[in-house]
Amino acid sequence: MVVSMGDPSGIGPEIIAKAWERRAAHDLPPFVAVGDPRAVARVWSGPMEAVAQPAEVATVFARALPVLAVPDAADVTPGTPDLEGARCALQSLELAAGLAVQGAARALVTGPVSKAQLYRVGFTQPGQTEFVADRCGIARDNAVMMLVGPSLRVVPITTHVALADVPGLLTVDLVLAKARATVRGLHRTFGIARPRLAFAGLNPHAGESGEMGCEEIDVLEPAIAILRSEGVDCAGPLAADTMFHPRARARYDAALCCYHDQALLPLKTLHFDEGVNVTLGLPIVRTSPDHGTAFSIAGRDMAEPGAMIAAIRLAGEAADRRAAARAYG
Amino acid sequence: MVVSMGDPSGIGPEIIAKAWERRAAHDLPPFVAVGDPRAVARVWSGPMEAVAQPAEVATVFARALPVLAVPDAADVTPGTPDLEGARCALQSLELAAGLAVQGAARALVTGPVSKAQLYRVGFTQPGQTEFVADRCGIARDNAVMMLVGPSLRVVPITTHVALADVPGLLTVDLVLAKARATVRGLHRTFGIARPRLAFAGLNPHAGESGEMGCEEIDVLEPAIAILRSEGVDCAGPLAADTMFHPRARARYDAALCCYHDQALLPLKTLHFDEGVNVTLGLPIVRTSPDHGTAFSIAGRDMAEPGAMIAAIRLAGEAADRRAAARAYG
Repeated sequence: MVVSMGDPSGIGPEIIAKAWERRAAHDLPPFVAVGDPRAVARVWSGPMEAVAQPAEVATVFARALPVLAVPDAADVTPGTPDLEGARCALQSLELAAGLAVQGAARALVTGPVSKAQLYRVGFTQPGQTEFVADRCGIARDNAVMMLVGPSLRVVPITTHVALADVPGLLTVDLVLAKARATVRGLHRTFGIARPRLAFAGLNPHAGESGEMGCEEIDVLEPAIAILRSEGVDCAGPLAADTMFHPRARARYDAALCCYHDQALLPLKTLHFDEGVNVTLGLPIVRTSPDHGTAFSIAGRDMAEPGAMIAAIRLAGEAADRRAAARAYG
Repeated sequence: MVVSMGDPSGIGPEIIAKAWERRAAHDLPPFVAVGDPRAVARVWSGPMEAVAQPAEVATVFARALPVLAVPDAADVTPGTPDLEGARCALQSLELAAGLAVQGAARALVTGPVSKAQLYRVGFTQPGQTEFVADRCGIARDNAVMMLVGPSLRVVPITTHVALADVPGLLTVDLVLAKARATVRGLHRTFGIARPRLAFAGLNPHAGESGEMGCEEIDVLEPAIAILRSEGVDCAGPLAADTMFHPRARARYDAALCCYHDQALLPLKTLHFDEGVNVTLGLPIVRTSPDHGTAFSIAGRDMAEPGAMIAAIRLAGEAADRRAAARAYG
């Protein structure tokens, strides 16, 4: 498994090293950090060993953190992002994604990057998810972002757009595309034989039969009817405020939400330090810790590796499931 | 303190009786149930005693649930709402609110009603909050709904409107009105000397400097600047998804949210069975359990009185604070 370091000035190198330290406690599968070895050495004094390809990782992993160096490693300062660091982050992502796409690594975990920094060195994708989808030859809209915590999985149907644009973007086709990818992903990545989906309404109280907004009637209900006709177990549209307490969460495997905050708000309220971003709909397994570069605490030994550990664990489990499905399929 | 029973076919009578049973464990102040005594007797076999006015409650409360009967009590069936029950609910609200407004009761707690049922008997207000504001002679927009749980207080700036209408309704004046009422309410009702407010952005990541929506720049930031110039402690606009985890909640006394679900979703995710609706900006103390009539479980001894108990406790504490402020002010 390859883990890109993300921005070398951020907390990526530190949380990857801390995840390696805790590999036994969390039963982590072997992985290699892809990026600048100096960025790790600057914030961590544990054992590191350079490898030239993922195949060497299995033997190294027990005694040292394997590191695969990118060509243009940069001498950056933790907490102070610069263009050299951004170039290094982009090379880490490029190399790690390439190894996963070629099949040289069985899963890809991406460390946190600064999009603003990446844009300054010519990055043309909105984010890492779209970059990876592109490398996989998958259209952007078919790569579905799922956020996963210990007690909740959410999929935002629309993502990084102004709230005012959300009602206009919600269409039956978009809901169907996201829901179908979610069902496949729950099956392939999480091993759930018959996934149960719950749909959040867009409006307060899910619109109360059209009293407050009609997107439930015009978009969500028709999409749900089609999904049910395909045999998908669907609940909703539900009042979004009443579907994330513990008893409600037990009733579904993933919540499909109309917009970014409707999905991310419950996930981060419940699982702020352990959320994992999983990209469904790709030929490869890809996960990421659901947090940013945290430049403000980089290099101060304050970063919590919980989300990185969860991302590595989940990537390993998903890769195992895919391998088993191929073996027995 | 007066507690209106709400719809007699709902769980109101049962949760009031259960709250009385647990009065010692929760140190509840004396209260009287206002409504149909038969609605209580139908679902509860404990001691009840009719009173003619709130002044009798203090002596009765230790030995029996005091009940103040409305004129047209209705012989309803638990779980089966009808027009007689709706009339009874409206009389309960009218009588209880009247006693609180006259000063005969020191606080008002309202039990759950069905708005749809009330509309069928000529109720002309959108909900109980507006009804109570009207009886107090307070304009509807100045009665501010705050939802309170053990670890979170939220105020929705817009309430029961379609999500598509929210961006257009958000104005500097509206934000200021809600924020100022919240500051006064935190002071008078909760005894917080210098309240700290946190404002949720409307858009993902609070708009990222206008990249995804401009309501943060056009509305929230100017409103916050004015509030700060008035000496109000304000944070934000913050990314809504990152402001409700435990460490973030410790940094403010109330979160002002742009729309219904942004406020109610975190509150109900964290405190589904114990949320209290408090109306700020009124001359009287008014609280309510933040749940509905639950007709589907009425009369089956399944209703949890947690939110009603919390509503009664909070109303008592707020009334004590107001009395102390008058005594020493």
